[in-house]
Amino acid sequence: MEYYQLTQTNLTDYLKLLPEVQLRFSSFDSLKVQEINDGNMNYAFVVTNKLDTNQSVFVKQAPPYIKVLGEQWPLTRQRMTAEINALNYQVSVCPEMVPEVYYQSETLSVLIMENLSTHALLRTELIQGRYLPRLAEDLSTFLAETLFYSSDFALPSADKKAMVSKSSNQEMCQITEDFVFTYPFEHHDMNDYNPALSQSIIDSIQKDANVRAHVAQMKFIFMNRPEALLHGDLHTSSVMVNVQQTFVIDPEFSFAGPMGFDIGALIANLYLSYFSHAHKSSAESVNYSQWLLQTIDDLWYKFEAKFLSLWSEHEQSALSTFMGKDLTGDSHQIFRQIFLQQVFSNTLGFAACKMIRRILGVAKVADFMQFEDQKLRAKLETQALKMATTMLLNRQSYANIGDVNKLAEDVSSI
Amino acid sequence: MEYYQLTQTNLTDYLKLLPEVQLRFSSFDSLKVQEINDGNMNYAFVVTNKLDTNQSVFVKQAPPYIKVLGEQWPLTRQRMTAEINALNYQVSVCPEMVPEVYYQSETLSVLIMENLSTHALLRTELIQGRYLPRLAEDLSTFLAETLFYSSDFALPSADKKAMVSKSSNQEMCQITEDFVFTYPFEHHDMNDYNPALSQSIIDSIQKDANVRAHVAQMKFIFMNRPEALLHGDLHTSSVMVNVQQTFVIDPEFSFAGPMGFDIGALIANLYLSYFSHAHKSSAESVNYSQWLLQTIDDLWYKFEAKFLSLWSEHEQSALSTFMGKDLTGDSHQIFRQIFLQQVFSNTLGFAACKMIRRILGVAKVADFMQFEDQKLRAKLETQALKMATTMLLNRQSYANIGDVNKLAEDVSSI
Repeated sequence: MEYYQLTQTNLTDYLKLLPEVQLRFSSFDSLKVQEINDGNMNYAFVVTNKLDTNQSVFVKQAPPYIKVLGEQWPLTRQRMTAEINALNYQVSVCPEMVPEVYYQSETLSVLIMENLSTHALLRTELIQGRYLPRLAEDLSTFLAETLFYSSDFALPSADKKAMVSKSSNQEMCQITEDFVFTYPFEHHDMNDYNPALSQSIIDSIQKDANVRAHVAQMKFIFMNRPEALLHGDLHTSSVMVNVQQTFVIDPEFSFAGPMGFDIGALIANLYLSYFSHAHKSSAESVNYSQWLLQTIDDLWYKFEAKFLSLWSEHEQSALSTFMGKDLTGDSHQIFRQIFLQQVFSNTLGFAACKMIRRILGVAKVADFMQFEDQKLRAKLETQALKMATTMLLNRQSYANIGDVNKLAEDVSSI
Repeated sequence: MEYYQLTQTNLTDYLKLLPEVQLRFSSFDSLKVQEINDGNMNYAFVVTNKLDTNQSVFVKQAPPYIKVLGEQWPLTRQRMTAEINALNYQVSVCPEMVPEVYYQSETLSVLIMENLSTHALLRTELIQGRYLPRLAEDLSTFLAETLFYSSDFALPSADKKAMVSKSSNQEMCQITEDFVFTYPFEHHDMNDYNPALSQSIIDSIQKDANVRAHVAQMKFIFMNRPEALLHGDLHTSSVMVNVQQTFVIDPEFSFAGPMGFDIGALIANLYLSYFSHAHKSSAESVNYSQWLLQTIDDLWYKFEAKFLSLWSEHEQSALSTFMGKDLTGDSHQIFRQIFLQQVFSNTLGFAACKMIRRILGVAKVADFMQFEDQKLRAKLETQALKMATTMLLNRQSYANIGDVNKLAEDVSSI
């Protein structure tokens, strides 16, 4: 079968022929096909049986270009291969946290999966100020399991190297290299500044020699550390939640990269949410801001504890371990501490770059954009940029995430 | 053509048919084929025209097993593909420092190249106490050029990632992971200790929790940093020299790895040579030891200067640079300093692992093995192990290579 574009018109005929989809619908006579226009890159549809709305599937197809920009912006369909590869891996290690995949085709660059109809985007929920009691627990599990099981600590050397090769996702990595680590830090046509944001604040990033040097360092780390199979774009619109469940979606940027990049993406977006709430004085907002900081704290500590626990479980059961045999004393503890300290400082460095790019770069976040008042937005942006700069330059000095939370609080009270 | 084993008997018939080799010999009637038994892995031959001994070629073939161990020790011929790949790259950036390749075949895993008949192995020359005035100059050029031009600072992102994929050399990396970073540090059957070496010294490596943790850290860095296309096994028997010229040979361990691994391998073997001379009290030995330390000093500083100079030249000429546009002040200088400081500390960490493995692991060095007196050898081994341990644990604290040389001098006077 050759690639062709699925549409509202031809989708039902395509689905009918797939045994995996036939299982999902008692009849194909009354299907409703609804195009979803949330995403920028890909086509997406929800297909529902009008006779029984519990029967539904979500269909995602990557065209050989960027959907919202059109055919004159080509982009390889390799991104869907990467997404399929990542989903298959994530299902194998934490099936409870990724949507069930019913059918996948690299030829058509199509994924047909569970329709998460009772879940909302995490970003939307955070904007609404909704408490999500399982969030830190679930996302720390996702991070610990996906990052540990694809690392050299879990995989034999040959399997790990095969994973790295198979997960190559060059064009999508290039997008991150440009749009996260380069353009926001220079005068680039693609940048988009809030007119109320002061030039001196923009200059304090773009014209600061130290900031530029440390961003280059993070970019180099991004490009040169195939530590684990990453999600690659783990912001708060890549997570769907309700009070009981958390799902991670859209791993089309997946590649073998540094662990701190996924953790940092999440933490960056939680801090942006924090600034969007912390400026309000209502008791409700104060409480919610504190819950956000507590969530960030929990996320890191739970991640760390779970990663360490997977590591020591694996070492007890494995025939050969990364560090070799005959270890005495604190060898494991010392190595794990060195290792996690580096993941932590990379996490902060990446979080900083991600925060900055959401303010100076082209891709904005709804958490800030919801405020029509440009001056208010500039205030929040200034706070976030100040925090990001400090966090970036001092990323190796923070003893723990609590100190970083303190920085957020200090900055938000300016 | 299918793979078959070249032998002294069939080699001439094979060479006769190759136009590239025909150019090298005025006649094929009086060729002398001499098998060279230096190497452990591969078959090697020197083919000379008896009528004109200036006409000669060097032939190397990788069998699908380890030559000295026989067919029951299979090893993929991918290593010859890696060697061919590396040689082609090295020729492209510093042709004057690698033997000229006349013919290469991945099918037969064969390389036919310049016969370096007027050069000797660097290790042999160092053992003889020969001064090599060009050594630091040439090897620093080789390191700076091969490491810079295959890095993200020189290559566009897509080309760099293609280079990394193409240079995969899994089985050879696994050998390094096991024989450099694992076995020497545990009680392993493959280890081989000098009976005169005290158990307490062996334990100070194998049973020290800090040493084991930091070796694990270096192993992780080795496995997770595709910074540049490495030689992969750059010890002093991978270099051929005479007073005028330096050649780097045998890149069969080549892969995309951390820059410090190549520099560290070289420096480790120069320090081993240092200890093999410094214990002698003759003025000649004292002078030669000092020349070795000076060479190490020169090697690092010249490498650093050349790498930086290639980097800034490239940035002046390139349309887009790694750090982006509109850089002000010291951005470049700060980033380069951060970057080279990390290469330096990795260099010391890798050098330490390499020194230790040459004493506790299976592969010994002639620099020490030349001494039949086990006690004398144990004294030198103890010095080298002490230096390596200190250098490993403090690799991030040394301000410069001069301080590391001082450590070598202090340790050798114990």
